[in-house]
Amino acid sequence: MAKNKPRSRHKHYNVPEPGTSPGMYAIDDNALKPIITLHTYNDKIYKKEEIKNINNIDRLTENKDFYYWFDIKGLADPNIFETLYSKLNISRLVLEDITSSYQRPKLDEYDNDKYVFAVSRHLFLNGENDLCNEQISFILTSKCLITFQENYEDCFNPVRKRLEIGKGNIRIGGSSYLMYAIMDVIVDNYFTLLNYWGEELDAIEDRLFDNPDKRIMYDTQGIKRSLIMIRKVAWPERDKLNDILRSDSDLISDLTKTYIKDAYDHCIQIIDFIESLKEIASANIDMNLSIISNRMNEIMKVLTIISSIFIPLTFIAGIYGMNFSREDPVTGKVLPDNMPELYSPHGYMWTWIVMAVIAVLQVIYFWRRGWFK
Amino acid sequence: MAKNKPRSRHKHYNVPEPGTSPGMYAIDDNALKPIITLHTYNDKIYKKEEIKNINNIDRLTENKDFYYWFDIKGLADPNIFETLYSKLNISRLVLEDITSSYQRPKLDEYDNDKYVFAVSRHLFLNGENDLCNEQISFILTSKCLITFQENYEDCFNPVRKRLEIGKGNIRIGGSSYLMYAIMDVIVDNYFTLLNYWGEELDAIEDRLFDNPDKRIMYDTQGIKRSLIMIRKVAWPERDKLNDILRSDSDLISDLTKTYIKDAYDHCIQIIDFIESLKEIASANIDMNLSIISNRMNEIMKVLTIISSIFIPLTFIAGIYGMNFSREDPVTGKVLPDNMPELYSPHGYMWTWIVMAVIAVLQVIYFWRRGWFK
Amino acid sequence: MAKNKPRSRHKHYNVPEPGTSPGMYAIDDNALKPIITLHTYNDKIYKKEEIKNINNIDRLTENKDFYYWFDIKGLADPNIFETLYSKLNISRLVLEDITSSYQRPKLDEYDNDKYVFAVSRHLFLNGENDLCNEQISFILTSKCLITFQENYEDCFNPVRKRLEIGKGNIRIGGSSYLMYAIMDVIVDNYFTLLNYWGEELDAIEDRLFDNPDKRIMYDTQGIKRSLIMIRKVAWPERDKLNDILRSDSDLISDLTKTYIKDAYDHCIQIIDFIESLKEIASANIDMNLSIISNRMNEIMKVLTIISSIFIPLTFIAGIYGMNFSREDPVTGKVLPDNMPELYSPHGYMWTWIVMAVIAVLQVIYFWRRGWFK
Amino acid sequence: MAKNKPRSRHKHYNVPEPGTSPGMYAIDDNALKPIITLHTYNDKIYKKEEIKNINNIDRLTENKDFYYWFDIKGLADPNIFETLYSKLNISRLVLEDITSSYQRPKLDEYDNDKYVFAVSRHLFLNGENDLCNEQISFILTSKCLITFQENYEDCFNPVRKRLEIGKGNIRIGGSSYLMYAIMDVIVDNYFTLLNYWGEELDAIEDRLFDNPDKRIMYDTQGIKRSLIMIRKVAWPERDKLNDILRSDSDLISDLTKTYIKDAYDHCIQIIDFIESLKEIASANIDMNLSIISNRMNEIMKVLTIISSIFIPLTFIAGIYGMNFSREDPVTGKVLPDNMPELYSPHGYMWTWIVMAVIAVLQVIYFWRRGWFK
Amino acid sequence: MAKNKPRSRHKHYNVPEPGTSPGMYAIDDNALKPIITLHTYNDKIYKKEEIKNINNIDRLTENKDFYYWFDIKGLADPNIFETLYSKLNISRLVLEDITSSYQRPKLDEYDNDKYVFAVSRHLFLNGENDLCNEQISFILTSKCLITFQENYEDCFNPVRKRLEIGKGNIRIGGSSYLMYAIMDVIVDNYFTLLNYWGEELDAIEDRLFDNPDKRIMYDTQGIKRSLIMIRKVAWPERDKLNDILRSDSDLISDLTKTYIKDAYDHCIQIIDFIESLKEIASANIDMNLSIISNRMNEIMKVLTIISSIFIPLTFIAGIYGMNFSREDPVTGKVLPDNMPELYSPHGYMWTWIVMAVIAVLQVIYFWRRGWFK
Ligand SMILES: [Mg+2]
Ligand SMILES: [Mg+2]
Ligand SMILES: [Mg+2]
Ligand SMILES: [Mg+2]
Ligand SMILES: [Mg+2]
Ligand SMILES: [Mg+2]
Ligand SMILES: [Mg+2]
Ligand SMILES: [Mg+2]
Ligand SMILES: [Mg+2]
Ligand SMILES: [Mg+2]
Ligand SMILES: [Mg+2]
Ligand SMILES: [Mg+2]
Ligand SMILES: [Mg+2]
Ligand SMILES: [Mg+2]
Ligand SMILES: [Mg+2]
Ligand SMILES: [Mg+2]
Ligand SMILES: [Mg+2]
Ligand SMILES: [Mg+2]
Ligand SMILES: [Mg+2]
Ligand SMILES: [Mg+2]
Ligand SMILES: [Mg+2]
Ligand SMILES: [Mg+2]
Ligand SMILES: [Mg+2]
Ligand SMILES: [Mg+2]
Ligand SMILES: [Mg+2]
Ligand SMILES: [Mg+2]
Ligand SMILES: [Mg+2]
Ligand SMILES: [Mg+2]
Ligand SMILES: [Mg+2]
Ligand SMILES: [Mg+2]
Ligand SMILES: [Mg+2]
Repeated sequence: MAKNKPRSRHKHYNVPEPGTSPGMYAIDDNALKPIITLHTYNDKIYKKEEIKNINNIDRLTENKDFYYWFDIKGLADPNIFETLYSKLNISRLVLEDITSSYQRPKLDEYDNDKYVFAVSRHLFLNGENDLCNEQISFILTSKCLITFQENYEDCFNPVRKRLEIGKGNIRIGGSSYLMYAIMDVIVDNYFTLLNYWGEELDAIEDRLFDNPDKRIMYDTQGIKRSLIMIRKVAWPERDKLNDILRSDSDLISDLTKTYIKDAYDHCIQIIDFIESLKEIASANIDMNLSIISNRMNEIMKVLTIISSIFIPLTFIAGIYGMNFSREDPVTGKVLPDNMPELYSPHGYMWTWIVMAVIAVLQVIYFWRRGWFK
Repeated sequence: MAKNKPRSRHKHYNVPEPGTSPGMYAIDDNALKPIITLHTYNDKIYKKEEIKNINNIDRLTENKDFYYWFDIKGLADPNIFETLYSKLNISRLVLEDITSSYQRPKLDEYDNDKYVFAVSRHLFLNGENDLCNEQISFILTSKCLITFQENYEDCFNPVRKRLEIGKGNIRIGGSSYLMYAIMDVIVDNYFTLLNYWGEELDAIEDRLFDNPDKRIMYDTQGIKRSLIMIRKVAWPERDKLNDILRSDSDLISDLTKTYIKDAYDHCIQIIDFIESLKEIASANIDMNLSIISNRMNEIMKVLTIISSIFIPLTFIAGIYGMNFSREDPVTGKVLPDNMPELYSPHGYMWTWIVMAVIAVLQVIYFWRRGWFK
Repeated sequence: MAKNKPRSRHKHYNVPEPGTSPGMYAIDDNALKPIITLHTYNDKIYKKEEIKNINNIDRLTENKDFYYWFDIKGLADPNIFETLYSKLNISRLVLEDITSSYQRPKLDEYDNDKYVFAVSRHLFLNGENDLCNEQISFILTSKCLITFQENYEDCFNPVRKRLEIGKGNIRIGGSSYLMYAIMDVIVDNYFTLLNYWGEELDAIEDRLFDNPDKRIMYDTQGIKRSLIMIRKVAWPERDKLNDILRSDSDLISDLTKTYIKDAYDHCIQIIDFIESLKEIASANIDMNLSIISNRMNEIMKVLTIISSIFIPLTFIAGIYGMNFSREDPVTGKVLPDNMPELYSPHGYMWTWIVMAVIAVLQVIYFWRRGWFK
Repeated sequence: MAKNKPRSRHKHYNVPEPGTSPGMYAIDDNALKPIITLHTYNDKIYKKEEIKNINNIDRLTENKDFYYWFDIKGLADPNIFETLYSKLNISRLVLEDITSSYQRPKLDEYDNDKYVFAVSRHLFLNGENDLCNEQISFILTSKCLITFQENYEDCFNPVRKRLEIGKGNIRIGGSSYLMYAIMDVIVDNYFTLLNYWGEELDAIEDRLFDNPDKRIMYDTQGIKRSLIMIRKVAWPERDKLNDILRSDSDLISDLTKTYIKDAYDHCIQIIDFIESLKEIASANIDMNLSIISNRMNEIMKVLTIISSIFIPLTFIAGIYGMNFSREDPVTGKVLPDNMPELYSPHGYMWTWIVMAVIAVLQVIYFWRRGWFK
Repeated sequence: MAKNKPRSRHKHYNVPEPGTSPGMYAIDDNALKPIITLHTYNDKIYKKEEIKNINNIDRLTENKDFYYWFDIKGLADPNIFETLYSKLNISRLVLEDITSSYQRPKLDEYDNDKYVFAVSRHLFLNGENDLCNEQISFILTSKCLITFQENYEDCFNPVRKRLEIGKGNIRIGGSSYLMYAIMDVIVDNYFTLLNYWGEELDAIEDRLFDNPDKRIMYDTQGIKRSLIMIRKVAWPERDKLNDILRSDSDLISDLTKTYIKDAYDHCIQIIDFIESLKEIASANIDMNLSIISNRMNEIMKVLTIISSIFIPLTFIAGIYGMNFSREDPVTGKVLPDNMPELYSPHGYMWTWIVMAVIAVLQVIYFWRRGWFK
């Protein structure tokens, strides 16, 4: 019954051994080798290059006429984190958060706003339709954005393309606007997921009305669990966007805040949507239970009607199947009280009549109680 | 079983492709061609004209002795939005919100209160009694109100008539009062819907008491879903009205605020009403489940009473229907232990007596347990 | 089944047509002709007179040595409202609120505290034990209280008597104290209702333990609905009393506030009481469902015990009721394998023994499983 | 079935007639004659005397070198209240609250902190294990504490003893510390009750696992109701202790506040404890319902297995019990198609074989579905 | 059925007798003899020694160049508490809290921040997989940390090792950092527990899909209860960490606060995790109930199908098993109306045909209703 296995099992936290020193980042054994892309841009110029490491990140970002985006996919290189620590003075707690990869969405401001650390969670369905949950980490300084993700696949290509083309605010809004643009894609993706589950719930509902089966409960619970998982992400995402809105750090421009307000609106819409879908899922479950109960009622009605009608009739037939003797086998004396009905000329007919009356009375009784509806 | 299909399916969000540039409004393929009516009025004069486009909106609204209402039905003309952007400096995020048409009710103030953007949601039942959900967008400047709606039909005719007649505050209250008047109609409409569902719930309740059937669950869940949908709108509507009340923008006059307070009261009454109806719907569902359980009890009681009485009797009849032989067929020897009852002169009568005693005892037993009530 | 009809159906809101001008009060068609009693009083003098109308309210209340209470029962005279508008400058929104009569309890301060408008809701059981819900409106100015109620009957006679007798603070506390006294009666009345339902719930509980029947669910849900209705009133009543407590209007004296604090305490006790009764009602419903399930179990046990014992026995009887022939009717050859038991000398006795063993084994089995407890 | 009667019925409020003047205290008909004990003490001296009345309370408390505790048990003497009103200027609202005895725990400060009025609720199990609910009222002035209770029995003896012995802060902490000490005993008593119910719930749980019966539901609901009642008291108790902590009245010393903070901690622990027990009670109820359902499943399985096996077999036996005639009784012609099986030499044996095969197939079927587990 | 006994029974509070003087610490009879380890350290030097008592704690901590950690396991020595009271002026309320060992996590600041008292709760599974709950108390002064625990086993060895090795901030962060480090281990341990239950829930879910049995309900409720217990600890832990973050005491350094923020994040993740697991547990219970209902439906379907088919057939067989006589035994007259079917040449065959038709019709009927799916 493998196909019944629940989807969306929660990701087990691979927490470090309790008691390890805080800030001791532990890179997961399954972590991928990093692919680092450096985007250097301003309103006029755009350059993209793949780089091997970020060892000389201070020199790479020297020219203050440009903005820089270090787009890092895969976390398996401790070198990166050591460089961040030694060259940019990034706190070890931040490095631990990037690598432990089970953070809630959040915004932390460090060192008198010298840099900002943020986390988003990218949700997506993998090949087997399981809901996956990837951490996207952001380090934002005045001219530079560094993003970290666990897998090579992502949903940021539209942003990379907009950056290349240079339309809109993407190149002139600064690094905080770029961070917004990525966060916005992530939030927009939630809509896609919710639309998908919304349609699945509609399909389940149709099955419920047409032809309810045992899988409905499993499937609805599966979607409900996915909704719980996305809700667990959407609420702190909302809080994070609100924190950005209310931040007084210079790193986040007013232009960015205008757009963050828009993403915040979307996030609230997502939370509304999740709650609606959860209520629909619950209603489906209730409806299913009610349908099961109604079915039971119907099954029992069939059994009761047939049993109630035929059991008394069978009893009567049984009576006249008894072998009480008409005469004493020894003395040969007639025993006239033993089943005289059997020897009446129309005994058989009368038996049928009595049976029919009983049956009809019962049918009337059941009819009146509404059991045939 | 088409008639059982659930009503009030949620409107699927037609979100733009994740990653598109923010402010990139995407006009829906099904959007209608706009019909634009310009109402020009002050306390003495009122003029209504249908206009083709708003390309020269700046010139049309030059005369500061009048108030202006651009009443736009249908969103299929990108020209309108480009004009708003170029001539009135309306933010692209606003234009996106107008066209994406799945916003929650909200109030946004822009550009140091140069204009205000607001959203209401108009709920109505369409021809097939489905709950529909239309977005009404408002752009309010000092002398001018621009409203956007998706469909040609609406519920604003009373406001248009009051504007034409000029009674009350409608022409002297300024553009913010006109915006209030439209929002008020929308909120008042919620009462009409709730009264309708309240009566439906009463009707379902009557069916529940008179003649409960399987459709009760479906119908109640349908109304419950409608209530969830209207609640999803009423709460942010309440917040929006409160935001207007507390706004310090000059665009919203004190007179308007007095009336907004009244609409806010109505909105709270609506939320109260929704919660009451939801509790009644839930109580109906509980009652229904209890009725189903009671019915099952009754069905089983009938089965048990009849089976318990007749199965033992049938067994007795079966006993005396056995063919144990009175004499050995080979030796002809009499076998006096084989069913001597059959040859007793009153065996048949005694059998009936025994059966009657058993039946009466059972009836007494069941009576005592209250099964005949 | 009229006696099963639910009590306490919610009062349908008779909202004005959506889109009517705000402040357009619409007097209900069933409204009663007003009976107006004017109480003129100070600490020494008390005068009561019935007046036809309040057209000269300004002249009637000229003498500042007295307090005035206009006690208006019945709302069917638009003249009253026009006078309030023209002579006392009462806002049209207030007049609409008085006549629409579905307001939540609330306190509104108008015109820089020139007057205060308040609403209470008087709950009572009518002749058919239905919970009714009447709006009491208050307009309070510095020396004058005007009260409006929909019906002629009310619960204010104790206050009128106290006013006539003049004991306590009633004549020296000013108009705000009189308003408090009336609100206090209304709140005290809620206790009476809750005590009544509390006793009904106790009675239902006793029925539950003694002799549960199908009406229990209906009756409990009826009380639950009444509790929901009173809760809907008690919460905003609490908020209103709190608003009065925190009001900085001169119209409400410090003495009054001391007493309002006492009424506020009562209101919180009422909310506590409502929640307790709701939990008891829910517990009754749960208990009822559990009793139904237990009954079903018992019914099924009876059926199963009797069927399980007698069906196999009947089968055995059926076996020996078969007519397999001892001899070939054509050849007359003896067929010794056909039911030799029938011709054994003690076949009948052995059959009974086998049956008894089967029955006893089953009884032991059921006994062990605890089915006879 | 008296033993099934629910415990912990809520105490009906004996509210005064609605409309009576506020502050009109009504002494309950069942109130006890007061026993008044006056404790006069300071850090060195302690004197205890029983007094007849408090008519000369002002003279009794003249000496400012001492603290005074008027410990009043029984409320049936209006004289006491009149004295408080005339000699100490205690508000009539306070006197009403003392006598009406259904107040929530609360703290009221009066007359610019000249005195403080507080209420606690003492919960205890009476002889029949019913949860009783007694009001303890406190009037605290600078040197004097007056306590009121409804019954003669209480739980304050440890405090009286500590006062007599004089150990700790009890004699040097002032009147507010004495008030704390009494409140602390009351709160500590809640733990005793909760431990008792905790053990009862454990016992019920054991019965649930060992031998579930119908009383489990009744007993669990009884405890649940007691928990609801204590929770109704514990929350406002917590608020009251918090109010004392934050009070800026001189009547409550800093030392007292340090200890009140400790009692506040206990109160939060109590609320935690209540919630845990409620969740355990709910889990027991759920478990019970699941056990009932499982039992029903087992009962039905037994019925279905036995019926399904024997009903078809009985049918077969019935077939061969039919009396279709081998020869036409009139013509004597042989009718070879009528039940030739009966005349086959091994018809009986074959019938048994067929029956056995059917039975075995069914047993295998049921086995496979896991019905024998 | 001992293996079904619920795990994680709540720890009964061993509260002192109500009315005992506050601050009267009562050492539990089962308390262990204390083992006291004194860690003396600064950034360069680390010394560990076991000491017998802390009688001369003031002298031991004289040298202000070092930090001190008194690591006390076991509470059975009143001497310790008396020393704390007399030498360090620790409040008796603190000493009571340490020994009563049922405190919620909390932070109390005493004596103008001369010392801080904190409580954490260490959760662990004992040998029988029961969830145990140990109190860890902290007294923090400027240079000294004193920790108290009830058992000898704990989870602090990693911290002791880090202290010995001296890596990271552990020796330079001061006493507040050491307190953080211990609290952090405790919180990290919660993850370990939650991961364990998460896996158990997964295993239960698999059993649910593969082979649901009666133990599922018991096991799920057991885990649910553990989750309730850890939630009861995690919420006040979160509040405590927040209190530390917001404390303005000099005893808690800014460095420590940075790390407390990290532990606070973990605590919120834990709360999230608990809620998820609780929802999964609830979903399992719902699913289980639905599976039980579905099984009942299937059982009843089998019974109904077999009974409905064979009971009518058995009735027919019963009819033709009746013994109505073909001739009057006395007169010998032929009675042609008595069961002529029995003498028809193909009566037997026709009977079979009628039976087959009835059976086939029923099978078709059941098939159509979907009962064979
Ligand atoms: Mg750690
Ligand atoms: Mg971390
Ligand atoms: Mg849908
Ligand atoms: Mg949050
Ligand atoms: Mg937007
Ligand atoms: Mg977006
Ligand atoms: Mg929005
Ligand atoms: Mg976007
Ligand atoms: Mg309105
Ligand atoms: Mg209704
Ligand atoms: Mg809100
Ligand atoms: Mg109004
Ligand atoms: Mg209106
Ligand atoms: Mg109105
Ligand atoms: Mg009152
Ligand atoms: Mg009661
Ligand atoms: Mg409220
Ligand atoms: Mg009072
Ligand atoms: Mg009163
Ligand atoms: Mg009172
Ligand atoms: Mg205490
Ligand atoms: Mg327990
Ligand atoms: Mg409360
Ligand atoms: Mg409160
Ligand atoms: Mg304490
Ligand atoms: Mg104590
Ligand atoms: Mg304590
Ligand atoms: Mg940690
Ligand atoms: Mg899991
Ligand atoms: Mg808390
Ligand atoms: Mg961290």
